[in-house]
Amino acid sequence: MPDDPYENLASFGLTLKAHESRFGWFLRTFRVDKLLFVSGATSVVDGAPVARGRIGAEVSLEQGVASARQAAVNLVAAVHADTGDLRRWRPVNLRIYGALDPAFERFSEVATGASQLLVDVFGELYGAHTRTGVSMPNPANGAAVEVEAIFALRDGEGQ
Amino acid sequence: MPDDPYENLASFGLTLKAHESRFGWFLRTFRVDKLLFVSGATSVVDGAPVARGRIGAEVSLEQGVASARQAAVNLVAAVHADTGDLRRWRPVNLRIYGALDPAFERFSEVATGASQLLVDVFGELYGAHTRTGVSMPNPANGAAVEVEAIFALRDGEGQ
Amino acid sequence: MPDDPYENLASFGLTLKAHESRFGWFLRTFRVDKLLFVSGATSVVDGAPVARGRIGAEVSLEQGVASARQAAVNLVAAVHADTGDLRRWRPVNLRIYGALDPAFERFSEVATGASQLLVDVFGELYGAHTRTGVSMPNPANGAAVEVEAIFALRDGEGQ
Repeated sequence: MPDDPYENLASFGLTLKAHESRFGWFLRTFRVDKLLFVSGATSVVDGAPVARGRIGAEVSLEQGVASARQAAVNLVAAVHADTGDLRRWRPVNLRIYGALDPAFERFSEVATGASQLLVDVFGELYGAHTRTGVSMPNPANGAAVEVEAIFALRDGEGQ
Repeated sequence: MPDDPYENLASFGLTLKAHESRFGWFLRTFRVDKLLFVSGATSVVDGAPVARGRIGAEVSLEQGVASARQAAVNLVAAVHADTGDLRRWRPVNLRIYGALDPAFERFSEVATGASQLLVDVFGELYGAHTRTGVSMPNPANGAAVEVEAIFALRDGEGQ
Repeated sequence: MPDDPYENLASFGLTLKAHESRFGWFLRTFRVDKLLFVSGATSVVDGAPVARGRIGAEVSLEQGVASARQAAVNLVAAVHADTGDLRRWRPVNLRIYGALDPAFERFSEVATGASQLLVDVFGELYGAHTRTGVSMPNPANGAAVEVEAIFALRDGEGQ
């Protein structure tokens, strides 16, 4: 798999559409030295959740995985929109929040949807990351999954 | 709106009272280079929650917003108590945790109470931040909202 | 209490066993300058949860504290495995996630199990940290507690 995020996005048929907010205080990303903090991105496409509700109830395992994947796409879209060049950045720390039915026990498989998307886009070397999966009681604006991340400049790319 | 946090606090009638802990291992904040990590602050005033319980059940939407605002005030109080000068710092990354009734769907409005407080205090330029809203099943020591943040030194202010 | 983590681990009878993953994208830790991001670690020992379920229901308060302690041990194991020297590092920012029964109100006591472990290992000076406790609806792969952290190089130890 190549390491160029734009080639990878094209080969997976993914398009990036960064979130817009009506609030002036909302920042999609904020950079401090080599780190880029990224706001939580939900599993929406064209303004609507990929699947609405809780995973294990209204939302199936497969829809949960697709939700995690879409939330990660939206995270990547934010990084692209604000920095202009995904090739300079890599994910380093990811939190994947899933709205779960109380009986649902397979959230790590869902969270892996987000992790795999980052590898699909950034390649195996630069897409690897630390992560934590966290269950939530309620969907985020209806969406089953929300992800947030800290990205970092790739080595050797200076400040 | 002026950019001086102390003038803004006064104009909104806000007073800062930093959390004290009986545990030696508890740090309100910890600085690494330009970043200041801040412990989670709950929506308490004078030791009691602004509202006790879950938003959408015992706690109304309006009380939830007030809770988010108070938790953010307490976060600012920690930064002031430990650094001595809010004018050198700005919020960059915020997580807002809300204890929600399972049927409550308007948490983003609650979370915005915390975000707006930061703009009220730090002004529109320096108060803007990345954020993630996360639902929780249980209140935090009875409080409906808890917020945590990473602050950063403002540009040009050196180390 | 001495400040040598390895002496402290021995005196508490603790052994470190770092988590292995079958996924190439999974990083236990990732370093950027002075910061070390650490993946969420669950309260497992030898592959099985210390206690399975929710604290306040299937899992007692005491088992919850033991779970928090074990999750923190696993976090320390990750730092040791990847850096080779705990004496150069200190915890600075901790998130403790607990799967709770909806009626359970003593989570801060549980979370303190993780905080105390860090003091036991790193000593009172270097073990102190900022933290946030977060309740979750569901266990993490069956485990009642999950912790994640950011560590930092100790002062004066250079890069």
